[in-house]
Amino acid sequence: MIDYKKILNDYIPDNDENLRLKDIEDNIIKELKDIILSKSIDAEPVSVGSYSKGTNLKNSDLDIFIVFSKKYSKKDMESIGLSLGHSVLRNGVEKYAEHPYVSGYVDNTKIDIVPAYRIENGQRIVSTVDRTPLHTKYVIENTNDVLRNDIRLLKIFMKANNVYGSEAAKSGFSGYLCELLVINFKSFENVIKYFSKLKGRLLIPESSGKRFNEPVVIIDPVDPTRNAGAAVSLENLSRMKIASRLFLLYKDESFFYPKDENPRYHNRGTCIYIITLKRPDIIDDIIYPQVFKFERQIFNIADRYGFMPVSSEVSVDKNIEILIEMQRDRLPDVSKHAGPPVDNDEAINFINVWKEKAVRGPYIENDRLYVDSETVIKTFNDALNNELKRIDIGKNLNPLKNNIKIIKYKDEKFKVAEKFFSKDLFH
Amino acid sequence: MIDYKKILNDYIPDNDENLRLKDIEDNIIKELKDIILSKSIDAEPVSVGSYSKGTNLKNSDLDIFIVFSKKYSKKDMESIGLSLGHSVLRNGVEKYAEHPYVSGYVDNTKIDIVPAYRIENGQRIVSTVDRTPLHTKYVIENTNDVLRNDIRLLKIFMKANNVYGSEAAKSGFSGYLCELLVINFKSFENVIKYFSKLKGRLLIPESSGKRFNEPVVIIDPVDPTRNAGAAVSLENLSRMKIASRLFLLYKDESFFYPKDENPRYHNRGTCIYIITLKRPDIIDDIIYPQVFKFERQIFNIADRYGFMPVSSEVSVDKNIEILIEMQRDRLPDVSKHAGPPVDNDEAINFINVWKEKAVRGPYIENDRLYVDSETVIKTFNDALNNELKRIDIGKNLNPLKNNIKIIKYKDEKFKVAEKFFSKDLFH
Repeated sequence: MIDYKKILNDYIPDNDENLRLKDIEDNIIKELKDIILSKSIDAEPVSVGSYSKGTNLKNSDLDIFIVFSKKYSKKDMESIGLSLGHSVLRNGVEKYAEHPYVSGYVDNTKIDIVPAYRIENGQRIVSTVDRTPLHTKYVIENTNDVLRNDIRLLKIFMKANNVYGSEAAKSGFSGYLCELLVINFKSFENVIKYFSKLKGRLLIPESSGKRFNEPVVIIDPVDPTRNAGAAVSLENLSRMKIASRLFLLYKDESFFYPKDENPRYHNRGTCIYIITLKRPDIIDDIIYPQVFKFERQIFNIADRYGFMPVSSEVSVDKNIEILIEMQRDRLPDVSKHAGPPVDNDEAINFINVWKEKAVRGPYIENDRLYVDSETVIKTFNDALNNELKRIDIGKNLNPLKNNIKIIKYKDEKFKVAEKFFSKDLFH
Repeated sequence: MIDYKKILNDYIPDNDENLRLKDIEDNIIKELKDIILSKSIDAEPVSVGSYSKGTNLKNSDLDIFIVFSKKYSKKDMESIGLSLGHSVLRNGVEKYAEHPYVSGYVDNTKIDIVPAYRIENGQRIVSTVDRTPLHTKYVIENTNDVLRNDIRLLKIFMKANNVYGSEAAKSGFSGYLCELLVINFKSFENVIKYFSKLKGRLLIPESSGKRFNEPVVIIDPVDPTRNAGAAVSLENLSRMKIASRLFLLYKDESFFYPKDENPRYHNRGTCIYIITLKRPDIIDDIIYPQVFKFERQIFNIADRYGFMPVSSEVSVDKNIEILIEMQRDRLPDVSKHAGPPVDNDEAINFINVWKEKAVRGPYIENDRLYVDSETVIKTFNDALNNELKRIDIGKNLNPLKNNIKIIKYKDEKFKVAEKFFSKDLFH
């Protein structure tokens, strides 16, 4: 039997933390209300996020939204919102999601003050953050203390197994998805049982699969046109299925505690290259999609030129590092090319073009002409450099093209190599 | 303009040869008739083959069939046939096609004396040779001197372009097919025009394509259930299309004179192996199909193990030599293996089996488990030796398995390497 109490104890805030958070939040909301009143602004501060829903873990952030009447223009709302944020977070910095917002620290607790529009269930939103207050309301109204702890258990479980977090870097399950899953299945263990038996996509309700293509479809109760699970990757759904099956089999508390990456370095007899560039000063959610796209492009180039890529890995830290593993980094000197079928109008032309310059042929196999010719681009380095010139690697990476390094990996220390050699079920 | 007369002059027998052949044939037929009469055998000698049809080229063989009444058992027909053969060919040796027959030389001309059953058009044959006398009759009745010379031109053209000969080693057009084509299209040039325009399969009549799958379908006029073109390979059909197109374009007499193989040796940066064994003392038509099958098996093994075969070549002389060219002869030390989908009942079992012995993983990609493991068989040599033990390489090659040599080719002299480096449109 799993001692869920003990696990929760390890993860949820103690009384001191709760009191401290309440204190901070009350103060900020009061301050905001005072300013809003004094300036006759049609807006109110609302506590949102996991703390306000009672589903927070230790050291969570505080999220306070300032919900504006729709009569404000986007520009006005944003500028008033920022000035309100700065007035309560003296050390705050401006960040940018869909709206700009202010982020700062009070007593080591991170606080975001985010402007949004006031909308009702089913009303059209202007930006996705406008929905957040409705989410908070929905979760509070549909949970009790027991369910809230089960939501926390699900978050802990997902974090420990590396499938938690909706940010682009992760493509995992968001906190809100954990809340919806527990509300839907009525307990943590029911959610785990559901995942352990799930075949194929996750569809809540079942009928939603027709409207959405993503691996995880969970219709947002506050907006039935939206798939709240759109960001979850197939891989993370798969990880969650396996984690759930293993947990039900072994009923082991270790499933609630993260396992470190455990690189097992070994010689693979393959060709491993690391493509690296300095990370531009851009937030994760903008940089990661570009890096993933670049990773796919490198993989496709390797594939198209015949270097037989096996796997790839990405690390974004001070540097962007993309690792590509291939079965070879050099092509044979001569390669075989298919020409037209012998019946084709182009056949004679093909013969005339190639008969002098071919290394062998033209010759016939079955119903087609072939020719063996000198391979023009023989090495992965040349192929990648050749393609780099012309491909679009994303708005923020394109300007850095000239500073990309292509390194043949041996045993140097690279974050991405550490990840590569740590690959297991949940890494 | 092509000087067809000159070409024919180079290829068809002069008066001396014609007289000599007539002399030899008349003598043998007379001798056979005398013996048959004296022994009251119900059979008659019939001259068949290209000489008897007037479609022969220089130095052709003589084929004399002894056509037996169907009242004889197969055994009796064969033994009487052989003894008749030996009595007229003192130096004759016994050979075996579908029946045994006697083959020998008179005055440097090769003569085959072949027993067969007497059948009429449309009657059921016992063995394929029974049809030969009907073919001879059909061609004589449907040709005149002009057509016979056009048939000879077609044979010369096909020989020069390496698509002539129905034997297993060639899979080309037989003499009988040349005769049927010219009879059907009424002239050599019409046949060439037909090939030059032909798209897809050769079907005579067009409707025969439904009943037969082969690339060349020419219904035998003496037996409408038979495809006389069954032995022609797609490659030889393709060669004939290209040869015809080029000939009509360049109208050059060189198309009637064979071009020698012209090996152009070069470094290809690939891995070329030659598999060689002593040729057993078996006729070509039996040995070649086994060698071709063995060649395909080697290619498939190379493919299945991941050595990326590019091409192969065969030579049968004193030795059987099979050349295989691959993009590599060594695999990476580690290879990636797909396990079951994560939803599958076997998933947990797969994880448990591999978690200790995997070099990396098990890990998840998309909806499936994978594992990287040590490659067990790393070299082509090991792979081929491993497979050789279990595969069937044909009745006559199987006993020689232990004497097969696998040689990594560098620049040694091998017939098969000469062929490999000579590959062009018609080699």
